[in-house]
This record gives sequence, C-alpha cells and structure tokens, in this order.
Amino acid sequence: MTPDEFRVFGHALVDWIAEYRSNLPKLRVMSDRKPGEIRALLPTQPPSEPEPMESLLADLRRVVLPGMTHWSHPSFFAYFPSNSSLPSVLADLVASGLGAQSMSWQTSPAATELEEVMMDWLRQMVGLPETFTGVLQDTASASTLVALICARERTSRLAQMEQGLQASHPAMTVYASEQAHSSVEKAVRLAGFGLSNLRLIETDSEFALVPQKLEQAISADLDVGKLPSAVVATVGTTATVAVDPVEAIAQIAARHRLWLHVDAAMAGTAMLLPECRRLWQGVEAADSLVFNPHKWMGATFDCSTYFVRDPGHLVQVMSTHPSYLKTGQDAQVKNFRDWGIPLGRRFRALKLWFLIREQGVRALQARIRRDLSNARWLAEQVDASPDWERVAPVLLQTVSLRHRPAGMQDDQLNPHNLALAERVNRSGAAYLTTALVGGRQILRLSIGSETTEREDVQAVWSLLNRQAQVLL
Amino acid sequence: MTPDEFRVFGHALVDWIAEYRSNLPKLRVMSDRKPGEIRALLPTQPPSEPEPMESLLADLRRVVLPGMTHWSHPSFFAYFPSNSSLPSVLADLVASGLGAQSMSWQTSPAATELEEVMMDWLRQMVGLPETFTGVLQDTASASTLVALICARERTSRLAQMEQGLQASHPAMTVYASEQAHSSVEKAVRLAGFGLSNLRLIETDSEFALVPQKLEQAISADLDVGKLPSAVVATVGTTATVAVDPVEAIAQIAARHRLWLHVDAAMAGTAMLLPECRRLWQGVEAADSLVFNPHKWMGATFDCSTYFVRDPGHLVQVMSTHPSYLKTGQDAQVKNFRDWGIPLGRRFRALKLWFLIREQGVRALQARIRRDLSNARWLAEQVDASPDWERVAPVLLQTVSLRHRPAGMQDDQLNPHNLALAERVNRSGAAYLTTALVGGRQILRLSIGSETTEREDVQAVWSLLNRQAQVLL
Repeated sequence: MTPDEFRVFGHALVDWIAEYRSNLPKLRVMSDRKPGEIRALLPTQPPSEPEPMESLLADLRRVVLPGMTHWSHPSFFAYFPSNSSLPSVLADLVASGLGAQSMSWQTSPAATELEEVMMDWLRQMVGLPETFTGVLQDTASASTLVALICARERTSRLAQMEQGLQASHPAMTVYASEQAHSSVEKAVRLAGFGLSNLRLIETDSEFALVPQKLEQAISADLDVGKLPSAVVATVGTTATVAVDPVEAIAQIAARHRLWLHVDAAMAGTAMLLPECRRLWQGVEAADSLVFNPHKWMGATFDCSTYFVRDPGHLVQVMSTHPSYLKTGQDAQVKNFRDWGIPLGRRFRALKLWFLIREQGVRALQARIRRDLSNARWLAEQVDASPDWERVAPVLLQTVSLRHRPAGMQDDQLNPHNLALAERVNRSGAAYLTTALVGGRQILRLSIGSETTEREDVQAVWSLLNRQAQVLL
Repeated sequence: MTPDEFRVFGHALVDWIAEYRSNLPKLRVMSDRKPGEIRALLPTQPPSEPEPMESLLADLRRVVLPGMTHWSHPSFFAYFPSNSSLPSVLADLVASGLGAQSMSWQTSPAATELEEVMMDWLRQMVGLPETFTGVLQDTASASTLVALICARERTSRLAQMEQGLQASHPAMTVYASEQAHSSVEKAVRLAGFGLSNLRLIETDSEFALVPQKLEQAISADLDVGKLPSAVVATVGTTATVAVDPVEAIAQIAARHRLWLHVDAAMAGTAMLLPECRRLWQGVEAADSLVFNPHKWMGATFDCSTYFVRDPGHLVQVMSTHPSYLKTGQDAQVKNFRDWGIPLGRRFRALKLWFLIREQGVRALQARIRRDLSNARWLAEQVDASPDWERVAPVLLQTVSLRHRPAGMQDDQLNPHNLALAERVNRSGAAYLTTALVGGRQILRLSIGSETTEREDVQAVWSLLNRQAQVLL
C-alpha cells in the first residue's frame, strides 16, 4: 500500500469510525451472533493474491460489525467502563503510523520521555505523592503479576538470581480479600507461590477486607513457620466496587514487612476527583499501585499505569543486559523494557497526551462526576422500589442490585436474576453482567461509558422493570 | 471530541502519516536528541482546560518527530525488522475505533473468531501441521514466559494449584543455547526457576546449540538429582540469526520428557517460504512456538503468535473462573483471556486480516525473498573485501560482520568496531546495532524494512567503508 492509497483508505476508515460512533445508539449492545457463525463467513485459507481494500471495508460491515459487542455504547453497563475516547484513538493511529518501538530510550527517545512526563501528569491528577514513579504496562493483570514477582523477590532477597523459589524456605504467603480480582489468584499461581499459599481474607457486610482477619491470617501463618510476603488491597472490587481499608492494611503490612500492592485498576480514575481520595487514604504507603486509564478514564486499550516507590528494585527484578541491547546512554536514561515483562513496547504515552490535552483535566473530572451522580440516581430508584434490593453501597459508579419480588422463595432468587440478566442482554437494548457475592446472584450496573447520560440510565432502569414483570 | 471533529482531525493525521512515510528517506534514522531534551519541551503539569487539536498536531512535529528513531526507514538495519505496514495500521485504527475488548468470546465474538481463523491462516502460511493451535500474545517475551510457566506446571504436575515451586523438589532445570535471547533468562527468573537452574549450552562455530552438550548437561543434572523441565530451541538468534538444530533437540527433549519451546520470533516470517522450512526441521515436535508477525512480516506492533500442541494444558495453567466473567457460551467457545497473562485484550487479529488480504501471500513471499537476496549480496561484498570479516553464516536476512583492517592489533578490533557503529549511527544516514559474540564485537546489519531496497543496502555498505576509512 502506497502512502497515497493509505490516504484514500485512511480517510474512508476515519469516516467509517465516525459513522460507527454516531450510530452506536441504534445498534444492539451485545452481539446476537451464535458461536461459529462469524468463523463460517471467513475463508479457511489465506489468499495468495491481493484483495482490493474495498472488499475489506465491505467485510467490516458484513462480518465484523454484527459480531461486535459495543463497549462504547451508551447502554453498555457490563464489566467496567472501557472508554476508547476519540482523541486517544487518533493518538494510537499516530503510534502505529510511526511504527515506534519504545523498548529502550535510544530506540525512541520521544516515546520514553513522553511516557515519563505522562506518568508524572497522571500521578498529579490522582493526587499521589512524588515518591511514586510510573510506567505503562498493558493490563492490570500484568501489573499485578509484576507486583507479586517483585514482592517475591524482595522477600526472598532476589532468589531469582540464584535457586529461585525452588530453594526458598520457609514458604512465602500472599494475602488479598475474598473479593479481590481473579488476576490476583492468577498472579499468585504464575509467580509460583502456589494457590495454597494465597489467603483470601474475609470481608465485611460491604465486601471490604476486615483488617483484623488479615492480622489473624498473618499470625497463623507465622505460627506455622510461613513467611508472609505480600498483601493486595483492592480499591474498587470487580463485583461491587467495594473498597478495602488501605490505611489499616498498610499499617499491618508495615508491621510485618509485607509488600503492599494496591489494585485500583478501575477506580483509580475516580481519584481525579479530590473528594474521592478519602477512599484510598493511606495509599502513600503502597509499594506498588495499578490504575488503568484504559478503563473509565478513556485512553484506548491497552494502557495500564503501574506506580512504584522503589523503581530501582523493579529494574533489578526485570532487567537483563544482553550485548545487543546496550546503548551509549544506558547510564543516563530510563530503558522501560526493564520496567516490565515485554521487551518490545508500543508508543502508548501518546494516547494519554492526546486525551488529557484535548479534554483538559476539568472536563475529565466533570464526566466522572456525571457518572457518580447517575449511579446515585439509580441507587435511589432501587432503594425506593420494594421489589428491588441494593446489595452493596454505591461508593462510585457501580450499582449492585437484585430483583426480589414479594413472595418469591429465596432459592428462586438466583435463577430469577440470572434469567433477568439474560433477557435484558438478549434484548439488545442494554448489556449488563452478573456476579455471585455472598451466595447471592446480583446484577451489576457499571455506569461510565463516555456516551452514557442520565436518560440512558433511566432507560435501563425501565427496561429492568419491564423485563422483570414479563418474567414473573 | 465529536465524531465530526474526529473526521477532520482523523483526515489530517492520516495525511500526516502518509507524508511521514513518504518523507522517511529524507529523515535521519536515529534521533540526535540528547537525554532530557524532549522532556524539557513538555509542561510539567497537565492542562486544566482543553487545548486545540491544532496545537497537538504542531507538537507532533516540534516535539515528537525529532525525538523518533525511525524503524520504518529504508536505512534502518538495527535490532530486527519491525514493519508497521500501512494496511495493518488501518486495521489497528479500526480496532481502536471499535474499542473492542476480546477477553471473552461474548465480549467481542468477531474478535475471538477472527483470531481463531487468522491463527489458522498463519499456521498454514508457515507450514506448521494441524496439530498446532495459535493465540495472539503481545510479545515474544510474554510468549516465552507463558511457555516456561507451562513447562514448569507440566513437570511439577500443576504445583501452582498447590504449594507452587516452594514445595517442588527436586529442583527443575531449563536449557537454552548461550546465544538464546535475553527473554529466556528473564522468563526463567520471573517464572521462579532461579537463574542457577538455567543451563546455557555451548554453541558451535556457527553459534548453533550443540546437541551433545545439551545431552551432557541434562545427564549432569540428572546425576545430581535435578529435574530437567524445558529446553528452548532458537530458530534465528538475535545476535547472528543462528539456527539451533531443532530435530536433534526435539529427540533429546522427547527422551527426557522436556517441554520444547521454539523461539522463532524474528525468523518465523522466513517460513512463509517453503525453501526456508528446512531450517526448523523437526518443529512439529515442539510443545510451543513463538513467531512475531510484528517483526519482519509487517503487522504493526504488538502481534506475537504463540502456537501450542496442547491448548487444554495452556488453559488449565492460565484460566480462572470468577463469577463475574462467566457467560452462557463458555462451554462452546474459546475465551482467549485463558490463553495468556492479560485479561483484557485488543482486537489484534484485524491487523493480520488486513495485512494478509491487502498483500496476498505471494507478495509477502516476494518481499521476504527480496530481503534474503539483499543479505546474500551484502555477504558477498563482505567476503570479497579483505578488510572485512563475516562472522557468521547468512542463513536469512542478517549479516554479521566486523571491520578488520590489515595491521590492526586484535585488542583494538572491538573498540574500533564499536566506534565505527557509533559513527554510522550518529551520521543519521543509517542505523545498525552491535553485539558481542565469542568475545568479538560485531556489527549486525539486519535487513528487512519494507522500504529497504538493494540501493539502500549498497548505500550502507559504502557508508561503512567510508566511515571505516575516516576512522583509520
């Protein structure tokens, strides 16, 4: 493809995206394709000869679009907000166009230095002290794995450079709440701790970790000769956006020299609002923290920020020094390949630069406040409706609820609510997800798509009520 | 940003990229910015108020462009080819525009099914048997870490679900050639094996692993009660693109029940040519294999394919089952979140779809043959020049050489060649990297940028000769 052809089809695809975004409200949110239906439309063998771009564009409409679940839809209430804001889409286009590799400073100095500056802008935006240094990772799962490996290596005094975990004795243990994200369990397994060395600590009625239970679990482990290594505090759990008491956990962590990792993957965006920062009070004591601007904040996926207090330790754990990667500036610069798992790295800082500058911090704050207000409104409707039960406090933008019609047996509530979610999703008019908390099947309405306004929240509330009536 | 504003600035940035690509030959390859120079041009605080997109566009020219090292430049001979072909740039734009999340089938059915089909197209394109199933990862570093974790879990019988490596006994060991990529060492450390359980096996005069030495190392470990777990065979090493004898290694791996991981991150693209496949003869016995279409083949970064023989084992090692991720289709579909480390995933299959269809397999093959021919031409020039020494066979597209002028003392050769590389790179006319192999500082000319033609290779050869004369 020549640059001139790129202009033609680039313009066409920019227009295609603009049209897609404008039309979103008219599309069904969740795809109604059945497993295998899209695959059946695709040739089983690659083409030997070039195909015209026009046929690719036609296939985008014919094959891809009906197979998409639309995360930017105003009636998307599932999982978490995953905003792909248009200025960050443009920045990502530039990153691909430049074909940059930001593994080392020398391989793209602008990518490295812009990343340094963006990490500091974000640090200020969420009110973290200057003792934190940031780096971009792809996802919170990777950030949490990096954190637990760093914890492992601090506790074991860099065992990876010698016998690894295979010689560590006594066994190291990791702590998190029973509501912690599945990526914590996964990281514990992948980092080699072993699942039986993970303690999932009891939570209170609001699904927040109970510090006394953490203290007890640590004591019990010490009593049997284990070596407590790390604790993960979640600020905004996945199921109900519950918030662990960071300050109390930090005190326990300090007392027992545990690595404290704060998982604020989704809720970190709320910290753009000073009035929300009480939710992670004590965060300055964290050894590491993950916050994903690719969720609620709007940087197109992937863009996960990982803040640490001791970058020297991170680099010690992650760096290698092969001759073919040495450059003359290594002593003076950051080589971000040594700050995470992958060697190759996209120029992701551009997404943040475009997003923050095109929006300005105040507009970002205003959007987040809008979402908080919409969630409060919905919570009020739920609270005022005898047939509905709000299952958790609405600390941020997620409302956890279930339908509990008068006269329904307790053992019918779970299947009833699952069926209700299924009906809503199949209707195409809105998309929400479910979770099982404390044995109760709940519906989660995670509000925060860039395009979601009050009327969309009103609409999903009506839809829920209508579908619930139909089901009964 | 409204969709209409997106049209305006989208067109402007598409044109900007087209102009950038057209102008590449006029730009210096390696940035001449000094550490800190770009940072100094950026505000230390984020803006409260929105800035016009025009100022972002102006800053792309003023701040970013002079700070870029241009990986798509026709005179880029450093590291590895990292082609960001224009059709794949467009596909990536669509992926960002759609804002898709392909963690589960239900969250984007088209992304999952297109990935399945693209993995099978690629499998056919590189001539792998149907016993392999593929999945996209971000980088070869991540793929190799996944491979070694899977090896660890096979050897330890899923110790991660119990005590992890902390209870494994005897200690598991990993093998690779002393020329293996640094990501192997890194994966051994991060996966918790411990560096002292990694055996870097001696290579022959062509920098390929010597199977007898591997066999000896395994025997020695068995003798002292270690448990050999995995071997990494490299097809195309980083320093000199040497090729380990896969078939012989596979036989040894089978005999000792080692996991065989094949690292063909860069050289995998060569397997689009049937005449190159003898280089990885025996590959069908691999347990896992990594090949990066984001390198020589041209899918814009990141796009690493990971092929396995036993996807069930991969999923067993990588999957979690939280209630908030369950969907009604889980039994019928692939949920690719369970095939690697990250939960969230971009819609990366689009890049392959656009690239392969816009180019066609034959044109991709023709480009690769062009690069191989250019490398052979350069090797011939080196061989015909008494002042130059070719340090390794040219099996594919990389020429490893050093300047060895008559009369220069042996201990002067390394600093002389480093100085030569530095001069070439600083000139801005070409960019190459160095490596230390067998104590010799070599220059690597990695040929394979989409835009690199014979005349560019002729030009860098002249430049090397001129700069070498100036240095003397």
